[in-house]
Amino acid sequence: MKTGYFDDKRNTYVIENMFPRRPLINYIWNEEYIMGVDHTGQGKGFGSVGEGLRRDLFLPDCDNRLVYIKDEETGECWCFNKPFRRGKLDEYRCETGVGVQTIYGTYKEIQGKFSMTVPEAGKAELWQLKFKNVGEQSRKLSVYVYAKVHVLETFHSSYNISDWNEQVGGFYFSHKIYGAQHPYSGIYVCADRDAVSFCTSDTRFRGMYQTYENPIGVETDTLDNKGSSYDDYPSATMQFRFELEQNQTETINLVVGLATCVEEAAEDARTYLQEGTFEGVVQARKETSAEVERIYLLESGDAYIDRLTNVWLKNQVQLGKTWARVYGKGVRDMLQDITAFVSMDGDLAKTKIKQCLSYQFGDGNTVRMFAPFLRHPYVDGAAWIPETVVTYMKETGDIEFLDEVVPFFECDESGTVLEHIRRGIGFLTGQLGSHGLCLWGGGDWNDSIDNAGMQGIGESVWLSIATVKACKHYQEILKYIGRTEEAKIVKEKADRMTDNIIKHGFEGGHFIYGITDWGEKVGSDDCEEGKIYLNPQSWAVLAGIFDEADSNKLMDVVEERLHCDYGYVQCAPSYTKLDNHIGRSTGFLPGCVENGSVYNHGVTFKIAADCKLGRAEQAYRSVKEILPNNPVLEGCGVEPYAVTNMYLGPENPYDAKFAPCSWITGTAGWLYRCITEFIFGISAEYEGLKVAPCLPQELDNVTIRRKFRGAVYNIHIQRGENARIACDGVELSSNIVPIFEKGTTHEVEVYLG
Amino acid sequence: MKTGYFDDKRNTYVIENMFPRRPLINYIWNEEYIMGVDHTGQGKGFGSVGEGLRRDLFLPDCDNRLVYIKDEETGECWCFNKPFRRGKLDEYRCETGVGVQTIYGTYKEIQGKFSMTVPEAGKAELWQLKFKNVGEQSRKLSVYVYAKVHVLETFHSSYNISDWNEQVGGFYFSHKIYGAQHPYSGIYVCADRDAVSFCTSDTRFRGMYQTYENPIGVETDTLDNKGSSYDDYPSATMQFRFELEQNQTETINLVVGLATCVEEAAEDARTYLQEGTFEGVVQARKETSAEVERIYLLESGDAYIDRLTNVWLKNQVQLGKTWARVYGKGVRDMLQDITAFVSMDGDLAKTKIKQCLSYQFGDGNTVRMFAPFLRHPYVDGAAWIPETVVTYMKETGDIEFLDEVVPFFECDESGTVLEHIRRGIGFLTGQLGSHGLCLWGGGDWNDSIDNAGMQGIGESVWLSIATVKACKHYQEILKYIGRTEEAKIVKEKADRMTDNIIKHGFEGGHFIYGITDWGEKVGSDDCEEGKIYLNPQSWAVLAGIFDEADSNKLMDVVEERLHCDYGYVQCAPSYTKLDNHIGRSTGFLPGCVENGSVYNHGVTFKIAADCKLGRAEQAYRSVKEILPNNPVLEGCGVEPYAVTNMYLGPENPYDAKFAPCSWITGTAGWLYRCITEFIFGISAEYEGLKVAPCLPQELDNVTIRRKFRGAVYNIHIQRGENARIACDGVELSSNIVPIFEKGTTHEVEVYLG
Repeated sequence: MKTGYFDDKRNTYVIENMFPRRPLINYIWNEEYIMGVDHTGQGKGFGSVGEGLRRDLFLPDCDNRLVYIKDEETGECWCFNKPFRRGKLDEYRCETGVGVQTIYGTYKEIQGKFSMTVPEAGKAELWQLKFKNVGEQSRKLSVYVYAKVHVLETFHSSYNISDWNEQVGGFYFSHKIYGAQHPYSGIYVCADRDAVSFCTSDTRFRGMYQTYENPIGVETDTLDNKGSSYDDYPSATMQFRFELEQNQTETINLVVGLATCVEEAAEDARTYLQEGTFEGVVQARKETSAEVERIYLLESGDAYIDRLTNVWLKNQVQLGKTWARVYGKGVRDMLQDITAFVSMDGDLAKTKIKQCLSYQFGDGNTVRMFAPFLRHPYVDGAAWIPETVVTYMKETGDIEFLDEVVPFFECDESGTVLEHIRRGIGFLTGQLGSHGLCLWGGGDWNDSIDNAGMQGIGESVWLSIATVKACKHYQEILKYIGRTEEAKIVKEKADRMTDNIIKHGFEGGHFIYGITDWGEKVGSDDCEEGKIYLNPQSWAVLAGIFDEADSNKLMDVVEERLHCDYGYVQCAPSYTKLDNHIGRSTGFLPGCVENGSVYNHGVTFKIAADCKLGRAEQAYRSVKEILPNNPVLEGCGVEPYAVTNMYLGPENPYDAKFAPCSWITGTAGWLYRCITEFIFGISAEYEGLKVAPCLPQELDNVTIRRKFRGAVYNIHIQRGENARIACDGVELSSNIVPIFEKGTTHEVEVYLG
Repeated sequence: MKTGYFDDKRNTYVIENMFPRRPLINYIWNEEYIMGVDHTGQGKGFGSVGEGLRRDLFLPDCDNRLVYIKDEETGECWCFNKPFRRGKLDEYRCETGVGVQTIYGTYKEIQGKFSMTVPEAGKAELWQLKFKNVGEQSRKLSVYVYAKVHVLETFHSSYNISDWNEQVGGFYFSHKIYGAQHPYSGIYVCADRDAVSFCTSDTRFRGMYQTYENPIGVETDTLDNKGSSYDDYPSATMQFRFELEQNQTETINLVVGLATCVEEAAEDARTYLQEGTFEGVVQARKETSAEVERIYLLESGDAYIDRLTNVWLKNQVQLGKTWARVYGKGVRDMLQDITAFVSMDGDLAKTKIKQCLSYQFGDGNTVRMFAPFLRHPYVDGAAWIPETVVTYMKETGDIEFLDEVVPFFECDESGTVLEHIRRGIGFLTGQLGSHGLCLWGGGDWNDSIDNAGMQGIGESVWLSIATVKACKHYQEILKYIGRTEEAKIVKEKADRMTDNIIKHGFEGGHFIYGITDWGEKVGSDDCEEGKIYLNPQSWAVLAGIFDEADSNKLMDVVEERLHCDYGYVQCAPSYTKLDNHIGRSTGFLPGCVENGSVYNHGVTFKIAADCKLGRAEQAYRSVKEILPNNPVLEGCGVEPYAVTNMYLGPENPYDAKFAPCSWITGTAGWLYRCITEFIFGISAEYEGLKVAPCLPQELDNVTIRRKFRGAVYNIHIQRGENARIACDGVELSSNIVPIFEKGTTHEVEVYLG
């Protein structure tokens, strides 16, 4: 069954199938709070509560946001947002939007509507419930709103206090931790109307032996109005009671939030529950989203690619720039997402880049992940910095950014942004192995080749290639600011490394991935498994290791050896034998993650490489292959409005094509750039907006509205006899459209040859 | 509703109420595997897989052992051991036995029987299922047996492989962990008959949006017969199909076990599924239990106390001597349980004592807990050793035990058992504070006063008292083996400490608990909260700090200030304010655990103290107050066949009297000793069996069968004009009945004065 449809006018995806293969997720967030919410309302929720610390308000993987309606006359009770079995509800739909999620469920002529959002600031989520009598008879109803809050932070449930708090005017849950008081130990749950009764215990509401389908709490006239402590899983359930005439609607607003103390909870709850707050937040979100949409508005003729580009990928990229992979904030991951984000909000991008740089060590390497910290010694972090900085500067013209001072991590030193780049390049080019290639350390982009270089001997060919690419970006910066001598030195280093990459890394028509501590090759035809990897090939093109002809040959090898009908596998063949000289990737089942899945992040590198070589057909086909509307991916599980990190590869014995993961992926940022900058070819340069489309034959009439440095460029691309570009009727001598005054609008006509 | 009744003939407790306040737990175990199983079959299961390591086979707190019956003609399907809602089954009962658990559930004239046990050795649990047609019509049935095995040991589900394995002849689950192969990475689930189909995924069997009440897997003709890996919660479900005529029964035997490899799994499964194995294990368990029962057989006139003493407490003590508190093995906890256990199996007791001593550091202190390790620096471990060794030696006569050599923990040294005791006493008496009392360190018996002495200044009065008691046991040993000079030195130390205890620890009629690092008293009337603690008073009596008159006064204070109608609170009043100068106990809610609960372990110390002073009425009343058949404890949640660690204290704001914990408590061992040794007064001495009852007036005709050093003593206690004891018709000059030849039986007549 189809999951639903896009309502482009309202920028929502309407889910009609309540039972998709796996839950369809939406994320809603601000800078300090994030909620994950699926098409039934379930999902995580947590806030940032200090450097690298988070406080869970909800737990993932459980039923934690449920709304029950009880007909007071018949006693029948149902959960309208999650009915637990097919055929239960008469009507259902979920409207997944940017920053708002709304679930409708109708049963026995009562329509429930459950909307959720997150305010622009603050550690809280807002719920709005509406109940409408769509039948003819007057009805007496009880409504039970259930939130499975996460109170227990330490193992000892004796610390828990779960009770109604008069001052807060709702539930206040706390965990009286010995030793240190947690800054955000309190969770409050409040409504804007009086509850008839409440229950603080999951065991008492659900029932010790029952399920959420038929909780025991609703069987009595009211809930038990008791607090709880030891050995109870806390939860917050409120009962409301009202009568509904025909067509009458009742509204209840609720807030679930984190607070440091009762007083703060009371004040925040009052603020969030002021009349009109929910509607105001939703309206503000809508306006912000519309503004972001207008920064790059694509009309390509393919409605799916247009809406992904204009709305959904932007949203996904914005998630990444703040929350990275949600389970943790990878410096590398954020840097890539910010690179895609710079056009959407230059100031925020700048703040985020500085945040990332503050996790760079004094030696130039970066932390792999913070919030929480992952201290395994990955060594590629610095390779991602120069491109992000360059892209930011080109978008904004803010060259002074190079002089901003950012502290290094875990040392007393600080340095300018340029110094951060310099130390990063210094780290990468200074830690070389016996073949003159970058030491592999604890790993690079491929997190799961995590034991090939731990002894300080193994070298990564891919990382060496990425270093060459980083050096080229750095060179470009140095040249732009007139430091040509330094640029020359960097170029020499890059050239030397390029030679070594070709000499030691290229064999049998492709680049190997690296050489381990044991001197064994990875990604070579000499290997029994994992004979070829995708990324070294595509990055060799991106880094310009070869000339165009040899680069094209390389990409032909990729097509031949790594392609399947839903993308490109990360390596082939997949490992079936655990190899501790490589790392955990070889322990994964074939087709899983780095072990031979269609790892979309890698596919987007490949698309970028295609575009660099003008391989327009391959690039566009690859985009279409990995998008969830590829017909061969029917039933793969992916949200139609988000891109996924991977599809299980064709070699997976159980579930090829399945996409277990959702949203959190570097794919979004790179795919956004592939589409907007590389395929449709609009990118920022220091001196203007570059127009260099790489369009497949099937596209011949494309319109793009691009906002750049405050001016609007209406770009119209069509086929013509001769390639040429005109702006406001004047033909341009290059493919760079100049910078215009803020607030002006310009018509750009592009004819492809 | 009453939970059930005891069937004393079969040593079972029959649970008739399927929905008690909280699950009623049974434990079944051998030396390397343990299963927790409640009255519906759910609970944990794990094996020891190396020093301090365990491997979970099941997870607690979830539905993990379910058996469904589907009527193939009507399509109706139900879980007969856990029906998820009231009124679902026509008949239900659970027979909780020693080493075996059996659940019966009847619905629509099909009776299901689910029996579980653990073999005498091996890391596995055995299941036997029987299905009987108790109606008149022939029936076609499918049976689905579901086990939610715990495969995921690391966070990365890509390592999981869940599939059917032909060599094993059943499921084989493994987790291909990178870096190190786990010795017991495999879990197998096999049956002694062919399955029609199987399912390896919890999501696919239960259904992504359904509950275990109505799993989606049973809705189709067969299960999907697919393996699974990434992002699926593994589980093992097998479908069996058969027809049942009227009164016909079908039997299926299953095993769920841990293995290091496929070959071992295949071999173990074959062994465990041999015909008659299940019945053999149950029979052997029965015989062992009967033998243990005959070691101390009480007929007091109170049927409840008799069966607890003869069967259930012994079982609980045996759990403790091997698995301690299950979640971990506390050295202190095991030592106490072994002290109660010595009469049941001297050889095993000896092995266990040596195991505990191997966790004693070279400086004499012990590890607090192993499997897993708890390294917080508790300092009371050594105080428990002497009594355990003395009790073992008196029971067995094995004085040579003192010369056995046991290594110290985490150092190269070894020492005799006597040396272990010596170093322990050395540690206790050598680490004194400014008042000449024992340093409090990270805590003592009261685990939750864990920050009063961390700076090395605070002193524990209780630990000082316990040290005096330990010294007296040590003295006794030294005197017995003729080392009178050493005994004298120990006595001097103990006397000095006794003086300091009285001087600095006694005020206002009771002993305080201690003095913190900040010089603040704990357990004093000067304190705002926690003005008096139970243990320092009872232990002062046990250690003989005062003479009899003053000791009695002390116990009068206990009665006055700490008594409630279901026992004695650990301290009063409970803390309401967090005090980091004391520790986590003050963060617990009032009435929870060490913060003012009726902590039964402490109550048993108090009962022992009563007996020492001949306060027979108080002792017996206290026993009856804390037993779960105390009428005021109606609905407290406790299994009638086990004693609990605590009842929430009267000051708990939410749930006074509730007993959230089950089984795992030092209460069992001490209560067993209180009843058998102190109240009914039969204890081992070097030279014979001491008979010194401390009986309340209500008991005047008691018979005890005691096996001691291979001979049987039939002891009959009654009231008479003059106190006297006769053995085989001969009056004895003391209350010690001599040691007899193994295999002989003797009649002991005891007349109380």
